[in-house]
Amino acid sequence: MRIIGLDPGTATTGYGIVDVIDGAFDLVGYGVITTYPHTPMQERLQTIYEDINTLIEEYQPDTAGIEELFFGRNVTTAITVGQARGVLLLALSQAKIPIGEYTPLKIKDAVTGYGKAEKAQVQMMVRNLLNLDETPRPDDAADGLAVAITHYYYTRFDSLSQVE
Amino acid sequence: MRIIGLDPGTATTGYGIVDVIDGAFDLVGYGVITTYPHTPMQERLQTIYEDINTLIEEYQPDTAGIEELFFGRNVTTAITVGQARGVLLLALSQAKIPIGEYTPLKIKDAVTGYGKAEKAQVQMMVRNLLNLDETPRPDDAADGLAVAITHYYYTRFDSLSQVE
Repeated sequence: MRIIGLDPGTATTGYGIVDVIDGAFDLVGYGVITTYPHTPMQERLQTIYEDINTLIEEYQPDTAGIEELFFGRNVTTAITVGQARGVLLLALSQAKIPIGEYTPLKIKDAVTGYGKAEKAQVQMMVRNLLNLDETPRPDDAADGLAVAITHYYYTRFDSLSQVE
Repeated sequence: MRIIGLDPGTATTGYGIVDVIDGAFDLVGYGVITTYPHTPMQERLQTIYEDINTLIEEYQPDTAGIEELFFGRNVTTAITVGQARGVLLLALSQAKIPIGEYTPLKIKDAVTGYGKAEKAQVQMMVRNLLNLDETPRPDDAADGLAVAITHYYYTRFDSLSQVE
C-alpha cells in the first residue's frame, strides 16, 4: 500500500510518500510544494493543483492522509489554508484516491504515543520508523511523512474515514 | 464586457452573469451551484469545480468578481468556505479570467451607496439595475449578481485587483 501524507498550506504544502510492506514502512519520497507570496492567489492555487497532480501521477498513491487545520489559527489564515486544502482535496478526488484527515493532536499521538509531543519528538519518531539517518527537511516535509504514517495506523483498523 | 459574480459556499455557491453594454447592465443568467451535506467533502469540491467550469464554458465571462469571506465567521466555517473558494479561484485561473474580490461591505456600498444596507435594499437595487420584475431567487444567486455589479463599478475605474 502506498500512502501520501499532506500538510497543506498556501506558501508551503509538505508531502511525504511511504510504502507499507508487511507492516513495515519504506520511504518513497518527500518534499514541499512551494508558492511565492507576491504571486496572485489564483496562480498560487493553480501551482499547488498542478504540482499535486504531478505527484499523484508520478507516485500513484493508493490512499491519502491530510492534516486537519489547527482550529486555534485565526480566520484569515483558515481561509487561505482552506483554499489550498480545497485544491488538494479536489485533485485527490479526481484521481479517486480515498482520503483520511487528522488533527495535529491525532498525528502526534499516532506517531509518538503522546498527543502533546514536541515537534522534535515527532521528527525523531518519523526518522526511526522510516530508518533514516537524518530528519527529513524542511519541517513541512517531515510533517507530511508524519501524516502518512498516521494515516496508515488509522486505516489499518478502520474503514477509511471521509472528510466532512 | 461579460462579468460573472460569485458568492462562494460549500453547500451553495451563488452566481450571477451580466453583460455591460454602453454602461448599462443586461442580465445574462443567475443561479446556484448546490452540493449536499451528506456527500464527502472531496466530492462536493469536485462538483463545484465541474459546475463552475461548465458555467465558464457556457457563458465565457471576460472577468470575475468573488465575495471575500466575512471575517466575523468562525474558523470552521472559514475553512470550509475557503476550500470552496480555492476550487473556484483555481477554475477561473485555469481559464485565465481576471478576478476581483470584494467584502460584503464593499458590495453593499457599491450596489446601494450604503455599506450597512439591509439585504432587501441590496436585492431591490439589483432588481432595478437589471430591470427585473422580480428579485432573483434564491438569495445566493441575487448575491452573485450583486458581486458582478460591484465588480463592474470597481473595474470601470481601476486596473483589476488581484486577490492576495
